[in-house]
Amino acid sequence: MEDITVSAPGKVILHGEHAVVYGKVAIAASLNLRTYLLLRRSADNNISLDLPNITIKRSWTTDRIKSQVSLPLCDPNKPVGVSEELLTLLKDVAGVHQNESDTKQLAVITFLYLYCALAAHNGTVPAIDLKVVSIQPVSAGLGSSASYSVCLAASLLQLSGIISTPSGDGQWSEEERVLINSWAFFGEKILHGNPSGIDNSVSTFGGAIKFKSGKITPLRRVPKLHILLVNTGIPRSTKVLVARCRARYEKHPDIIEPVLNSIEAISHRCEEVLAKMADSPSNDQYEILEDLIDINQCHLGALQVNHPALEEIVRTAAKYNLHAKLTGAGGGGCAFILIKPDIPLKTVTDIKSEFATMKFQCWETSVGSPGVTAHCGNDDELNRLFS
Amino acid sequence: MEDITVSAPGKVILHGEHAVVYGKVAIAASLNLRTYLLLRRSADNNISLDLPNITIKRSWTTDRIKSQVSLPLCDPNKPVGVSEELLTLLKDVAGVHQNESDTKQLAVITFLYLYCALAAHNGTVPAIDLKVVSIQPVSAGLGSSASYSVCLAASLLQLSGIISTPSGDGQWSEEERVLINSWAFFGEKILHGNPSGIDNSVSTFGGAIKFKSGKITPLRRVPKLHILLVNTGIPRSTKVLVARCRARYEKHPDIIEPVLNSIEAISHRCEEVLAKMADSPSNDQYEILEDLIDINQCHLGALQVNHPALEEIVRTAAKYNLHAKLTGAGGGGCAFILIKPDIPLKTVTDIKSEFATMKFQCWETSVGSPGVTAHCGNDDELNRLFS
Repeated sequence: MEDITVSAPGKVILHGEHAVVYGKVAIAASLNLRTYLLLRRSADNNISLDLPNITIKRSWTTDRIKSQVSLPLCDPNKPVGVSEELLTLLKDVAGVHQNESDTKQLAVITFLYLYCALAAHNGTVPAIDLKVVSIQPVSAGLGSSASYSVCLAASLLQLSGIISTPSGDGQWSEEERVLINSWAFFGEKILHGNPSGIDNSVSTFGGAIKFKSGKITPLRRVPKLHILLVNTGIPRSTKVLVARCRARYEKHPDIIEPVLNSIEAISHRCEEVLAKMADSPSNDQYEILEDLIDINQCHLGALQVNHPALEEIVRTAAKYNLHAKLTGAGGGGCAFILIKPDIPLKTVTDIKSEFATMKFQCWETSVGSPGVTAHCGNDDELNRLFS
Repeated sequence: MEDITVSAPGKVILHGEHAVVYGKVAIAASLNLRTYLLLRRSADNNISLDLPNITIKRSWTTDRIKSQVSLPLCDPNKPVGVSEELLTLLKDVAGVHQNESDTKQLAVITFLYLYCALAAHNGTVPAIDLKVVSIQPVSAGLGSSASYSVCLAASLLQLSGIISTPSGDGQWSEEERVLINSWAFFGEKILHGNPSGIDNSVSTFGGAIKFKSGKITPLRRVPKLHILLVNTGIPRSTKVLVARCRARYEKHPDIIEPVLNSIEAISHRCEEVLAKMADSPSNDQYEILEDLIDINQCHLGALQVNHPALEEIVRTAAKYNLHAKLTGAGGGGCAFILIKPDIPLKTVTDIKSEFATMKFQCWETSVGSPGVTAHCGNDDELNRLFS
């Protein structure tokens, strides 16, 4: 069998972070900083998992899996979450290492669950070497864990022949993607407890989605937008920031409710403009997107989820006539800067080197790019990534 | 006759600038950077006007006034604006100097109008020397022209015996203040064309007022709040900034309307908290005022009337755990920083010297202080001011 190589994008929230908690619309888009997975049949009866980004390297004999897990687990066409019982068992199989963060352990357990449910769905236990390399920053609110789950689900479903091996553009059918997405969601549940489903949906389907009160709606037509993603490198807790916003809301409901309404209006406007831009992007539309970025960045300040480092990014962008906003929980984490097509290359080079002197990592990338994709094996860049 | 010495405060807008243009509530308070006026009977049959802040020094013989202006003009108890005809005549009397700004000429004409209407109300033309010294920055949106008109109206009404000579705390009766305010408003009309009446009302009555759709309501109970007023020194045009805000509103009405509503809610909350603080100020109330300052500063950014220098003031204040917002038109001009009673003196000294290195002029002062006030002649500080 040939190697299976798949990739899946991360996500950025364009508008609506925090407001989404209060039932307002948010718009999320795929981020073309991708996670790549290489799955290779193994000759030595081992199942190995290699996650260099989080320095995880594990392997299990196929016999061990067969003896410890009662297979098959379920019908792979009917996605289901892990049971408490099985979770306990998989924790044991994973082997909880001292000094290892929860995230690392949960990444291993997610793999084991999807492996058992999908690769071993008919009771046979294929020996494979699986390596996942991400070019996204981990734990930066960019959905790296969802793209990990999506890659796992897609590759293991393909390995078992439950979904096809796509040719050409590497895109699975809508139906197949729905299946990938559902399994990825249950992977996310192991990693995150109670995920919204935004991250795995964006990672699977690409483009952009609208999210309101638990309902995810793909946006039909989305342009590819170039952005500069800048990481403050400042760690923060989403929980703390959501609570900070909540405290302000509860202290000043009359003042904050209109701010949330304004953010929702921004999301609506963004959706409308993106649809128009998919047909024929114009400078006017880019300028509207810039206005929305500026106004929402102010609103996120009013919700008290800004950070001096994020403000510094916004200020630096403004010097170059560029527009930036934080994305995700705020209080640190990342901001994105919209790069209009007519921005001179020099401007981008200059601001990137300015961010470098400020010790902010940054990536020139795009949003609205394709979701989970199968790659052919003879891609030099991919080979370098996995070598 | 004894000298007449009066003073009147400037004003700051606490909340609601720009939103007020869209019919939302604004709250303005008196600013204890005052304008002082000294009126002295003259022995030499001259009427002289000395405005050192704007380097104006003029004098007229009483005969010239008598011959050129047909006195009396009107009943001083029935305030009335200058007619077009009289304005043309007074321009001639004032003598339009080459190289002199409109502001300077209009300051002279305002004096001449109020002098003729009030001091010469019964046809006699008293010889006086009048000097006005302001410790407010001029043309910084702090109502210096209104405090000039208020001082003129009060001193000239007192000179003619139309209002009393107050004793004790130097405060005129409510009725007398209404008269001063009306005349000051007609002075403002000469200086500003179409003033809102906020500035002269705050300067006359002190404390704070609420303003909505042309209606001015004094706030009954207002605490005295200590602030640091910081001047960016950046000149800006109110007209340009109002237009900039209008353009954003018209481009994104669904997004901006809620921001204006939030600002109105801030004004209401401010009024409510100020009333409570007048009884017994608590730290909790100060913290609410700080929240309102922070949120509104973000909103003014969303309305596109911020400026990098104003942001720098806000950022500097934040370093000291202090809260700042722009006041007035924005785009330059001034910001104020709330100084809670428990702020250590050293903090204030430190931030002041930091602003000094940034070349931002700043004043430690208060808002909510008394309006127009008569002073007794043997005040050393006043004597120094006028020497």
